[in-house]
Amino acid sequence: MATYQNGRKNKPLDIVIVGGGLVGSLEALYLAKRGHRVRLYEYREDIRNTPTARGRSINLALSVRGRKALRGVGLEQQMVQEHGIPMVGRYIHRLDGSTYIIPYDSRTNQCIYSVGRNFLNCLLLRESEKYKNVEKHFNHKLINTNLQKGLLTFQKTQTNETVDVNADLIIGSDGAYSAVRKAMMKEPLFDYSQKYIEHGYMELCIPPGDDGEFQMPSQYLHIWPRGNFMLIALPNQDRTWTVTLFMPFAKFNEIDSDEKLLNFFGKYFSDAIPLIGKKKLMEDFFSGSALPLVSVKCRPYHVKDKALLIGDAAHAVVPFYGQGMNCGFEDCTILDELFQKHNDNLKNILDEFSATRWVDVFAISDLAMYNYVEMRDLVTRPSYLFRKTIDDFLFWLIPNLWVPLYNSVSFTNMPYSQCVKNRQFQDKYWSLYNGANNSNEALG
Amino acid sequence: MATYQNGRKNKPLDIVIVGGGLVGSLEALYLAKRGHRVRLYEYREDIRNTPTARGRSINLALSVRGRKALRGVGLEQQMVQEHGIPMVGRYIHRLDGSTYIIPYDSRTNQCIYSVGRNFLNCLLLRESEKYKNVEKHFNHKLINTNLQKGLLTFQKTQTNETVDVNADLIIGSDGAYSAVRKAMMKEPLFDYSQKYIEHGYMELCIPPGDDGEFQMPSQYLHIWPRGNFMLIALPNQDRTWTVTLFMPFAKFNEIDSDEKLLNFFGKYFSDAIPLIGKKKLMEDFFSGSALPLVSVKCRPYHVKDKALLIGDAAHAVVPFYGQGMNCGFEDCTILDELFQKHNDNLKNILDEFSATRWVDVFAISDLAMYNYVEMRDLVTRPSYLFRKTIDDFLFWLIPNLWVPLYNSVSFTNMPYSQCVKNRQFQDKYWSLYNGANNSNEALG
Repeated sequence: MATYQNGRKNKPLDIVIVGGGLVGSLEALYLAKRGHRVRLYEYREDIRNTPTARGRSINLALSVRGRKALRGVGLEQQMVQEHGIPMVGRYIHRLDGSTYIIPYDSRTNQCIYSVGRNFLNCLLLRESEKYKNVEKHFNHKLINTNLQKGLLTFQKTQTNETVDVNADLIIGSDGAYSAVRKAMMKEPLFDYSQKYIEHGYMELCIPPGDDGEFQMPSQYLHIWPRGNFMLIALPNQDRTWTVTLFMPFAKFNEIDSDEKLLNFFGKYFSDAIPLIGKKKLMEDFFSGSALPLVSVKCRPYHVKDKALLIGDAAHAVVPFYGQGMNCGFEDCTILDELFQKHNDNLKNILDEFSATRWVDVFAISDLAMYNYVEMRDLVTRPSYLFRKTIDDFLFWLIPNLWVPLYNSVSFTNMPYSQCVKNRQFQDKYWSLYNGANNSNEALG
Repeated sequence: MATYQNGRKNKPLDIVIVGGGLVGSLEALYLAKRGHRVRLYEYREDIRNTPTARGRSINLALSVRGRKALRGVGLEQQMVQEHGIPMVGRYIHRLDGSTYIIPYDSRTNQCIYSVGRNFLNCLLLRESEKYKNVEKHFNHKLINTNLQKGLLTFQKTQTNETVDVNADLIIGSDGAYSAVRKAMMKEPLFDYSQKYIEHGYMELCIPPGDDGEFQMPSQYLHIWPRGNFMLIALPNQDRTWTVTLFMPFAKFNEIDSDEKLLNFFGKYFSDAIPLIGKKKLMEDFFSGSALPLVSVKCRPYHVKDKALLIGDAAHAVVPFYGQGMNCGFEDCTILDELFQKHNDNLKNILDEFSATRWVDVFAISDLAMYNYVEMRDLVTRPSYLFRKTIDDFLFWLIPNLWVPLYNSVSFTNMPYSQCVKNRQFQDKYWSLYNGANNSNEALG
C-alpha cells in the first residue's frame, strides 16, 4: 500500500477513470500513488486474461516523454531495458530494393523504443495491483453521464446489470471515440473537431526467419515511402515485425483480387513480399479491412471540478510522429505536477490543465499531420536529406541552440509548441540560405 | 394540389424533414412542388399558434440568394415587397454620437431586406397548406435514428407517446444543434468541427417613437462598432428595432449592476440609451442572458441515399455576413436543381451535393468569421473607407470585372467560393498599389 506523498494533507479524493487503456491505467497509478481512491472502468475484458491480446498487437514507439511518465511510477527501467527494442534511425527501402539509413540522433545516439501495446498495458494493470486504493472493473460500458454532478451509469456487458457511480472527479481516458467526450459535447462553449484523413491503415506481419531471428536489421524503424502510400515496420520482442500499410481507402478498394495485390506489392514493395510471405500476405490482406485514422481536437478539457479528458479522448492524433502514446503519457506527468502544485485542489488543477495543455497538444497534432506527408514523400527528396545533414551538423556544433525538430519532440521534454517555435526560428535561417541560393523548395 | 414537374417520371418519394424552421419549411415546399410525399417533424409547437412568436423576434437580412430561393416557390414578391424593410447601407454610429453612411451598392442601389424570422416561418408553413402531399407534425422530438435504414423514432412532447417513422430520405434541417447530425457523427469518416467564438449576443429593443414611427432612419443596418464589441440594429415592420449586442462573455459577466450597465452604455453607446429607454435597457439586459455563437462545419452531408443535412444543421455560420439564412435557402435551390438534373435519383443527388456544396459553405463560413472583425473594427479605419471608395469606383467603372466582395456575396448568386477568389484577385492589385505606397495595412 502506497503512502500519501509529502505535499498532500487533504483527504483522499474519489476518482473514477473511464477507460483502462495505456493512459487510463498509467493515470490510475499516479493518482493511487498520491493516495486517492481510484476506480477504473473498462468496457473490454481484462486484457491480461485475453489470449488474443498477445497475438497480433500494434507496437508503439516509446520516446523521452513516455519514458519520463513511466519513470514517475517506477516502470521505466523494466519497460525500456527489458522489453523495449531500441530503434536508432529510419531504414529506408527504395523502390529498386536498395536501402539507406537516416539516424535519429547521430550526435548522442539517442533512440526510440518499439514496445508492444498490450504488453505495456498489462504491465501497468499488474502494477496497480500493488495499490489497495485502486479498484478495477472490466466489462463495464458507460451508458449515461452527468458530468456536472459527477454521476456515471455503467452497464455490465456480461449481465446487462446497471451500476450507478458517483465521483469527485471523472477522468475520461476512453480513447479517440470517447464516450465521456460525447457527454462533454453537450456542455456549452465546447470547441470540437474530428478530421479523418483519406488514408486508412492495415496491419500485416513479418514472421521470424528460419533461424528464429529478425529478418531485417531490428534497430531501425523501416519505411517504404512511395508518395501517396507507404509501408512501415516496427520490431517485436518475439522477432516478428508489425508491418503497417498506409494508403488511401480508394486504393485499398481497388485491390480486390490476389493478382492485383501481388502486382501492387511486386511493383512497390517487392522486397517485402518474401519477408511477409506470399500466402500470408494474401490471407492477411483479404481477411482484414483498412481502418480509419482520425485527428481529434477539443477544448476545454474539463467540466467544472468534476470531469476531465486526457489521452486520445482529449487529443487523438494521426500516428505519423509516433507521439500519440507519448503525448497521452505526458498528460499524466503534467497532471501529477499540477496535483502537487495545487495541493490536490481539483478546480485549480483542471482550470490550469485546460488553459495551458491545448497549446502543446494542438502543436503535436499539427506536426503529426505534417509528418504524414514527410514520411511518405519528403524523406525521399535530396533536399530533405541535405537539410537533415546540415541540421545534424549544427546540432553537433551548437547542441544547445540547434536541436532539430524531430529530436526536440522525441528526445526532450521541451513543450511541443516550443519545439515548433524553435523550428520556425531555424526555418528563418534556412530561408536566408535558400534565398541566397535561389531555391524555393518548401521544407515545412 | 400541385402537379408533378415535367422532368419527373418516377414514383413519388417518401421524404421526412426533421426541423420545421426556415430552411426545413422551405425545403418542404420545394419537395412538395415536385410531387413527393413530405412529412415535416418539428420539436416545438406550431409557431403559427404561439403568441410569443410575434413578440421579440430576431430579424434577418434577406439578400439575393434567399430571394431566389423564395422565388422558386412563388413567395419572393410577397416577402420582399410587402413585408421586407429595405436597407441600402450601413449607418455607422461613432463614439461621439456623430454618424455616417456606407452604402451597400452606390452603383445600382441594390439593397438587403430586414425580415422577421417568425413572420417568414409562418408564411412558409402557411404556404405548405396548399399542398396535400405535405403533412406537418409539431411537438415531436427526435429520440432515435437509424440513418442507414431511414428509420426515425419521435416522441410526442405532449403525451410522451413514441412514433416510428420510415422514409426514403431523411432531411435534417434541425439547426445548429441538430439531432440528425448527432446521429450522423456515428457514421465512419464524418469530418466535423464546432467552434464557439468568445463573444455572446443579447437582444434588446428600440420601440417606436411617440409618433408611432421609427426612431432612426429605417433604410439602414445600424452599427455601433467599438473594437472588441458592437451593437447593431435592424428595423421591424412594427416600427421597432431589434438591437443586438455582441460582446465577450467575460465582459457580459462584468456588467452585474444597473450602475455598471448605464456607465457602460453611457461610455460606448450613449446615443442608444434614449432610444432603448433607460428602464427598458436595465430590464431587458438583466432578464436575459448572453447567448453563444457557434460555427459548425462538417462533411459529407449525407449517408448513402438515405439521409441529408441542410441549413444550419449542415453549416451553422456566425451571423456577421448576414448569410446564414440565405446560405440555407440556397441549399434548397441547389437541391432542387439537383433533383431536376438527376431525375430524382437520390444517390446521385446526395453524392453531388456532398461533393460540391462544402466548398462554398466553408467559404461563407470563413468570410462570416472574418467579417466579424471587420464589422467591429475595420469599418472605423480610414483605410477601410478608402478602399471601399476605390472598390465602389472600380465597380462603377468596370462592373463586370470588379464586383466588391460584399456585393458579390449579397447581390449575386455567384458561388461563395468564387466571390472569395475574385477578392483574392482584387487583393493582388491592392497589394501592388499598397506596395507602391509603402503601406502594409492588411485589408483582407
